[in-house]
Amino acid sequence: MRIAVLGLGTVGRYVVDALESERELFSARLGEELVVSRILVRDQGSERPESVRGRITFAVEEILKDPEIEIVVELMGGYEPARSIIEAALKAGKSVVTANKEVIARSGPALSLAAQPAADLLFEAAVAGGIPIIRSLQESLAGNRLQAIYGIVNGTTNFVLSRMQREGGSFVEALAEAKRLGYAEADPSDDLDALDAVRKISILASLAFGGWVDVDAVPKEGIRGITEVDIAEAKSLGGVIKLVARAEATPDGLTLGVSPTLIPLGHPLADVQGAQNAIYVRGEPIGELIFQGPGAGGPATSSAVIGDIIDAARSRRVGGRSVALPREPAPLVPLGQHAHCYYMRLRLHDEPGALALVAQAFAGAGVTLRSVRQPVREAGISVISVVTGPTRRAQLEDARLSLRGCPSVLAEESLILAEMESLLP
Amino acid sequence: MRIAVLGLGTVGRYVVDALESERELFSARLGEELVVSRILVRDQGSERPESVRGRITFAVEEILKDPEIEIVVELMGGYEPARSIIEAALKAGKSVVTANKEVIARSGPALSLAAQPAADLLFEAAVAGGIPIIRSLQESLAGNRLQAIYGIVNGTTNFVLSRMQREGGSFVEALAEAKRLGYAEADPSDDLDALDAVRKISILASLAFGGWVDVDAVPKEGIRGITEVDIAEAKSLGGVIKLVARAEATPDGLTLGVSPTLIPLGHPLADVQGAQNAIYVRGEPIGELIFQGPGAGGPATSSAVIGDIIDAARSRRVGGRSVALPREPAPLVPLGQHAHCYYMRLRLHDEPGALALVAQAFAGAGVTLRSVRQPVREAGISVISVVTGPTRRAQLEDARLSLRGCPSVLAEESLILAEMESLLP
Repeated sequence: MRIAVLGLGTVGRYVVDALESERELFSARLGEELVVSRILVRDQGSERPESVRGRITFAVEEILKDPEIEIVVELMGGYEPARSIIEAALKAGKSVVTANKEVIARSGPALSLAAQPAADLLFEAAVAGGIPIIRSLQESLAGNRLQAIYGIVNGTTNFVLSRMQREGGSFVEALAEAKRLGYAEADPSDDLDALDAVRKISILASLAFGGWVDVDAVPKEGIRGITEVDIAEAKSLGGVIKLVARAEATPDGLTLGVSPTLIPLGHPLADVQGAQNAIYVRGEPIGELIFQGPGAGGPATSSAVIGDIIDAARSRRVGGRSVALPREPAPLVPLGQHAHCYYMRLRLHDEPGALALVAQAFAGAGVTLRSVRQPVREAGISVISVVTGPTRRAQLEDARLSLRGCPSVLAEESLILAEMESLLP
Repeated sequence: MRIAVLGLGTVGRYVVDALESERELFSARLGEELVVSRILVRDQGSERPESVRGRITFAVEEILKDPEIEIVVELMGGYEPARSIIEAALKAGKSVVTANKEVIARSGPALSLAAQPAADLLFEAAVAGGIPIIRSLQESLAGNRLQAIYGIVNGTTNFVLSRMQREGGSFVEALAEAKRLGYAEADPSDDLDALDAVRKISILASLAFGGWVDVDAVPKEGIRGITEVDIAEAKSLGGVIKLVARAEATPDGLTLGVSPTLIPLGHPLADVQGAQNAIYVRGEPIGELIFQGPGAGGPATSSAVIGDIIDAARSRRVGGRSVALPREPAPLVPLGQHAHCYYMRLRLHDEPGALALVAQAFAGAGVTLRSVRQPVREAGISVISVVTGPTRRAQLEDARLSLRGCPSVLAEESLILAEMESLLP
């Protein structure tokens, strides 16, 4: 079966090499040979290895119009022109394998609608690299009513937070090390500002809960504001801070979000170190499941891409996979109604009655407090840390408004979701 | 689409109930309704709930000859008559979903050969309950050359060992509690003596390494001999004892086995508590993956069974899944050639030169020692614990033979696989 690969970056090279070097293994598994007959690249100037030179093309039409090419593997990245090419390939009856989370998160349902019957759209590599979570949600867990997904789905931010927790030091230092070791890109904004994780949780939630989630509707907060003090405070509360992507089914719809989250030591996600990814799934009747593994990088992504290529090839022999993407938008709970516990740290004038005023501000908004601590008190300043009980976001904003009006309050130093109890069933 | 369920035990009842109560959800996922039209039971005398009474049958032919029944769900357990019925159903062109690890481990390839083209044989529930490991090996990880699988795949033994480790007490006490809480059957021999885990690792290895593994060829050792002293010694060596099912690809073939194994704290399998299951997979290019979740029980097993039913229904629309089971036998490395480290505890006469004789027995067989400790010395008796370096089983047996001939050696108290270093890549 003939394949075209679009893009010859890290993953593209890895996939082409593996299909060649493991040709015998994959042929045996599939009962048919997989041949990369065309490779699309953008940059006409680059020198290419001898092994691929004869197959390079700069014109995507050569691939789209070649009736012998049955599977198109899109590894270019970015939204356009990747989206248009995927659409054209699916309309031409070719199966498409992609690692492009941006295209799937924004246009998955439309693309799946555009496909010819035997043309599959497979994207295991788009979320959590080599962890087989997409196929598990679409197939293995189809017999469940899922309740919640919590994921550490961005390796860059998990590397940075793990490093801050393990070795101390600031966010800036940890980020510099992540760049040095290749765990952060030159411009890591999509990772640090949680956009990457939003795309991934949107895809997972859409598959798990059966309604499409618009990425722009997912509240997000990155990790740039996390300080050494936050990490230390988390520790003294018996927890760690992770960038958690979450999606939960409630009677009123889905609550989704990505944000730094204080989770208890002992929770399976608390132990996930470095650039690892992990996904926790809860549902009926399954109970709890955890998947953990490498979430990014050439090898792990290639594992998922090649698995999808083999699946696409098998499935073409029988006329398609028959797994549809949900098209109706998922009902979302408005952010103001999301109920969570929060960790908040405030800097106060160290004066009589200051704490009472703070307590009043919370009480006035109907926010209960689980704990109040005073880690620092010096030179007329006192710092207090509070953990709230379950609080709707709208109530929290009321409390913050009152606090800003409080003459004793100098500053809100930190506000972090604190799932110390509610993350577990 | 019409379904017949064979067997109305815990899982059978759960599956029938869920297909009814979640009919709308599953119909939406599948685009078609799933109807349980016949339920086979053995015991003609039992009282049945009203909801199923009209569909009960005692004659399997009624199901096999009904052309409207497209999927047969086998939940009877045991080897025969389950195997014959599965074969007849597949030959009649019906897809079969089963949780029967005994039938799959012994007869999977023959059954898959007997099947009509559109008749799938699905058995996600046969290994590790709700954990989607079968489909992951068959599909998601098909792009890998797998190197090793280590699994905690038996909930009963893991409950017993976790309980001994956490709360102390003997094997007998822990087993009594497991029975009281429903984690051990009235006759738990298949679990305790590792036969259940052997069936599961045989199935996993067959799928992972592409050659069929005969269950009778897998060396096995159960947990009945594990004592409080073993647990305490494991702890003092920085590890825990788990019943590990393992399969590794070596240049000479597969090494497989199930046995109590000393694994280091910090390894992902060391933390798996109670009746949980976990499977660790290593391969190229994926690296390491871990799946963890409920390995048994009605709900978790039902999750896998219903996922398979939905998959079978989808797949019938397109003419079958096209995933073959390997038929050629896998090349196995003979047990004598398996290389492992071992923990051994010996009871000696406390006399000068005793240790030297022991050391000589090991050295004579070419076995190196990583550590030698003397945890007990009293009343003329000394107990020593040794951990060997990597040793072929044949060498170890040589050493044991010499030790038995040693007048200073009173008894071998314990011999346990010690994967303190070699379990990790």
